[in-house]
Amino acid sequence: MKASILTIGTELLIGQVIDTNSAWLGEQLNALGIEIIEKRSVADKDQMIKDTLNQLFEKCNIVLITGGLGPTNDDITKKTLAAYWNRDMYFDEKTYEKISQYFKQRNIPMQEAHKEQCYMPKGVTLLANNMGTAPGMWLEDGDKIIVSMPGVPSEMKYIFENDLRKKFEDSKIAAQIFHRTIHTAGTGETVLATLIQDIEENLPKGIAIAYLPSVAQVRVRISGIAQEGSNLREEVLKISTQIEERIQKYIIGFDGATLASSIREILKERGENLTVAESCTGGYLSHLLVQTPGISQVYDGSITAYSYALKQSLLGVDGETLKENGAVSEEVVEQMVLGCIEATKSTYAISISGIAGPGGGTPDKPVGTVWVACGNKDKIRTKKLKLTKNRDMNIKYSAILALILFRRLLVEEN
Amino acid sequence: MKASILTIGTELLIGQVIDTNSAWLGEQLNALGIEIIEKRSVADKDQMIKDTLNQLFEKCNIVLITGGLGPTNDDITKKTLAAYWNRDMYFDEKTYEKISQYFKQRNIPMQEAHKEQCYMPKGVTLLANNMGTAPGMWLEDGDKIIVSMPGVPSEMKYIFENDLRKKFEDSKIAAQIFHRTIHTAGTGETVLATLIQDIEENLPKGIAIAYLPSVAQVRVRISGIAQEGSNLREEVLKISTQIEERIQKYIIGFDGATLASSIREILKERGENLTVAESCTGGYLSHLLVQTPGISQVYDGSITAYSYALKQSLLGVDGETLKENGAVSEEVVEQMVLGCIEATKSTYAISISGIAGPGGGTPDKPVGTVWVACGNKDKIRTKKLKLTKNRDMNIKYSAILALILFRRLLVEEN
Repeated sequence: MKASILTIGTELLIGQVIDTNSAWLGEQLNALGIEIIEKRSVADKDQMIKDTLNQLFEKCNIVLITGGLGPTNDDITKKTLAAYWNRDMYFDEKTYEKISQYFKQRNIPMQEAHKEQCYMPKGVTLLANNMGTAPGMWLEDGDKIIVSMPGVPSEMKYIFENDLRKKFEDSKIAAQIFHRTIHTAGTGETVLATLIQDIEENLPKGIAIAYLPSVAQVRVRISGIAQEGSNLREEVLKISTQIEERIQKYIIGFDGATLASSIREILKERGENLTVAESCTGGYLSHLLVQTPGISQVYDGSITAYSYALKQSLLGVDGETLKENGAVSEEVVEQMVLGCIEATKSTYAISISGIAGPGGGTPDKPVGTVWVACGNKDKIRTKKLKLTKNRDMNIKYSAILALILFRRLLVEEN
Repeated sequence: MKASILTIGTELLIGQVIDTNSAWLGEQLNALGIEIIEKRSVADKDQMIKDTLNQLFEKCNIVLITGGLGPTNDDITKKTLAAYWNRDMYFDEKTYEKISQYFKQRNIPMQEAHKEQCYMPKGVTLLANNMGTAPGMWLEDGDKIIVSMPGVPSEMKYIFENDLRKKFEDSKIAAQIFHRTIHTAGTGETVLATLIQDIEENLPKGIAIAYLPSVAQVRVRISGIAQEGSNLREEVLKISTQIEERIQKYIIGFDGATLASSIREILKERGENLTVAESCTGGYLSHLLVQTPGISQVYDGSITAYSYALKQSLLGVDGETLKENGAVSEEVVEQMVLGCIEATKSTYAISISGIAGPGGGTPDKPVGTVWVACGNKDKIRTKKLKLTKNRDMNIKYSAILALILFRRLLVEEN
């Protein structure tokens, strides 16, 4: 079965909100074998939404909508959908009860506008939303399905996980798509493509390869769309094995793997642990690590020494070294590693100090100059990075490249 | 002038990559007065791209495309665009020179696939990309414009900032859209809407209000689309002033403001500073603060004590207190504030300790239980949060709610 995703709201078009809903939904639908053929965002305009639905239903039978279900006047999705399929509205007592309860529990007085949220298009199947006041809606018309959910990501996710996934599973719309993703770090997509060129040129029918670059990493995805009689899963895994042999030294993991989860596995196996000393990245490296469930088995914590004073007092960086070399120097990141190990009693530490920008650059050390270091008491590796003029990018690149440096140290040490 | 944004790549549809490009582009175009009427994502499929262009050009004259310009086989945008407007391809010597230079500087051998990147549709205006190998393309056909850029955000941004913005400005396509955004925290959109209901019901023609909820915050956006003879900017600001009077106590700032920038201004004015002690948020609160340029004037750093041992050794939390109350308790977050102030010599500290999930919950303290505290040596405020089952959400909510608690303390203290 084919589906498309429609996100509604002017805030998406003018970039005040980044649409994370459609990526999340895409991932879920893909895992359910529902092919997503298109994603669109349009404004909260009645006719625009109707025209879009008409176009999307020419290409697929399911449209998932997020946004425009709130209690305020700019939220018009529900009325538009009712009109689109000529449904009258009815007052849903159960929704009213639930919303009343929701506010009672939170000690917030219920507003008149919330009563509006209880009117529903006739024939709707409601999808429970325990994270907010607007339930999701499942509407059918012939072989066409519209699913409408609130735009707040936590509410949308709750509805999907608690009601919608099961409804899709029960309706047996499982096409056969199988993806295998190889995660690599340390080289670009062109080098990878050249290494596996002949494999890519001789792919069996129905199998495709895609390169998905992100910050200092490339994911190589092998996808199979089922052909009649083919054993899709085995076919994809066979190609994957061939590719793995060629690009072995860049591989950090498969499918859900991340740099951090790969590091976690190595350290866990060895019974060692890690802490982090940050400056310009301001906690981002620690945040990256902590996004990985189970990291607490190998990760104890971090010190973000943003000021000179804290570099000295918390990480034992020498005042003279700071004065002579500046905070962004090989000497300082080495001392940060040692000081962090000393303060936290960890096996390893990673440290980062740099000029993230936009200010703070000098001719000698322009914005984007970052030193990273990692190691233990006996051995420290350092690397000087020359990054961009963009603060946000510099923070992200520094953290990822520090993890790549550390992972390489762990792997080569073995 | 009206425009739409088209992002190309299967990875966007199946959610392996979150499309941040279109939000960023939307913001830039909006600031230039170019109205974005739609955003779409489709797969790297020739016919799909052509059909989409046909549909978009029925509604607007400019289509901005990102993605599918890389050197690998799944990148087909360039060939598709050349075919769409019947352009032959030519080998662009300047691009070849630039790409050769790019690889020479990085000591990477140039691959055959990179030569492919030098073929361009005839009549193109190239847009310089110093962050990668594929230049941007500006193509015109009659009154229609296609702009095509790489999908890697840093490359797309470079092209926009260094060439494209100026090209849009020079072509004088400035419609009149003006937005004013009021940032609020501490209440929901329904309460806000009720407080300003009569203003919203009596808006002048061409002015609209939208509510943009995000994690524990709502932005109220007043937008004006120019009517003939109207003074749009003044009109929007007049309405904004009326609204501000009604919702004063929830306002944290305007337009680009954030919680962190608002805290920065208060502390800077008073000559005070802040540090942070984190547990379950793992550095995210520090990362949030450091995203704010100029924060170093009031923010010194943080300690992420993820393990019990570091809570004791770095933050001076009492072992008995940990044992009796657990790490997720009012007593521990209070001690974390005091210990952090002691270790860092700051005026204030904020602390967070909670069960982010998915594991670690108990009947007494289920996943989503988080304690936050903030204050100085003399006075500490604490708050118990009951959040969600989602790790990522819990981390983000905890950090934002801690900042709201701290900001309220600062404002009420004054």
